[in-house]
Amino acid sequence: MVQIKIESNILGANEILARKNRNIFTEKKVLLVNLMSSPGSGKTSILEKTIELLNGQLNLGVIEGDLYTDQDAQRIEKKGVRVIQINTEGTCHLDAGMVGKTFVHLPVDKMDLVFIENVGNLVCPAEFDLGEDFKVVVISTAEGNDKPLKYPLIFREAKAVLVNKIDLLPYTDFSLEKIKEDISKINPSAKIFMVSGRTGQGINKWNQWLLEEVKRKKSI
Amino acid sequence: MVQIKIESNILGANEILARKNRNIFTEKKVLLVNLMSSPGSGKTSILEKTIELLNGQLNLGVIEGDLYTDQDAQRIEKKGVRVIQINTEGTCHLDAGMVGKTFVHLPVDKMDLVFIENVGNLVCPAEFDLGEDFKVVVISTAEGNDKPLKYPLIFREAKAVLVNKIDLLPYTDFSLEKIKEDISKINPSAKIFMVSGRTGQGINKWNQWLLEEVKRKKSI
Repeated sequence: MVQIKIESNILGANEILARKNRNIFTEKKVLLVNLMSSPGSGKTSILEKTIELLNGQLNLGVIEGDLYTDQDAQRIEKKGVRVIQINTEGTCHLDAGMVGKTFVHLPVDKMDLVFIENVGNLVCPAEFDLGEDFKVVVISTAEGNDKPLKYPLIFREAKAVLVNKIDLLPYTDFSLEKIKEDISKINPSAKIFMVSGRTGQGINKWNQWLLEEVKRKKSI
Repeated sequence: MVQIKIESNILGANEILARKNRNIFTEKKVLLVNLMSSPGSGKTSILEKTIELLNGQLNLGVIEGDLYTDQDAQRIEKKGVRVIQINTEGTCHLDAGMVGKTFVHLPVDKMDLVFIENVGNLVCPAEFDLGEDFKVVVISTAEGNDKPLKYPLIFREAKAVLVNKIDLLPYTDFSLEKIKEDISKINPSAKIFMVSGRTGQGINKWNQWLLEEVKRKKSI
């Protein structure tokens, strides 16, 4: 009998390529962060504000994942950091092979911290190891409180959760208490930051944490 | 040489099952609407308000797609209509086979309009015909203006677009002019409704349009 296991083959190949990516970033002592969220949660706005504050202190790079356009990459490029665009041509997530292909265009030797902005999607990206040091999930206060329990895998996989659009909080039914409670049920060790990519509120605290993580990576 | 085309086989099977679903709803003259959006755009809130206004005028049913939970189905059930929950167990979209399996629990004969609330995802659900009469996309004003150009397939496939959370408009940078312009570039014939699932604003106009579509289906 011949058995063809498509899914495990794909995931197996991804694991090998993820390990390759991880080895490169470990050898170079560069932190690689995989940023994930629904479409419109504000990943790009958070990156813009983060780059404004960290550029100068750190050498930064961004790998932008998007189905077809380079709109986000254009926004990031204006901030004066190296950006590589991956267009997935309809595929709903990045995989380790796509990310690995960007490295020839990215002077990893000279970098301290590289962000991967994944395709906007709370389901599929969580299943693909890209070789990152850790995953970060963004959720916006406008999306409602039910996301951690409805999309548990992505919240379980994250080292940190950014609760974005904190400036919209007064105009929504969103509860900060409830979101903290639900995240801690799924992932008790996740760091939670309240931020606004629009106003910059809370970005400093998140950046301080990133600086510590960069330092930790360099000391390994 | 043996060629195994996995994707086209899956899509082929889906097409056959979608046609089966469509035939059932055509024979019974019941309208079947596939509601899609990012997680947290407000599909369930819109359905709640829609059911409040249309229940009594129409016999309604809802097929709820969700990865694991029945939170949305519980919310809809409180409105007094028939709800069937599909848990995809991690799959990022509904397919025609999943939808077809709900029909034994749904008294289609007695219905006028059945909504399918798809899994929250702007990418994968657009690729799967469920046998619906048409697709509707929800986008929230908190998600930013770039969604139609970044996720063109789902906007191209939709007969109507609901711009939700219109109550948050004053607190965001969202532009109604720009969203209308971008949607019309991708899909010039799409109907656009401005609504708020939270306050009920604009729901009446969307419901009037649904009533016309139900009437049209019955007259075929």
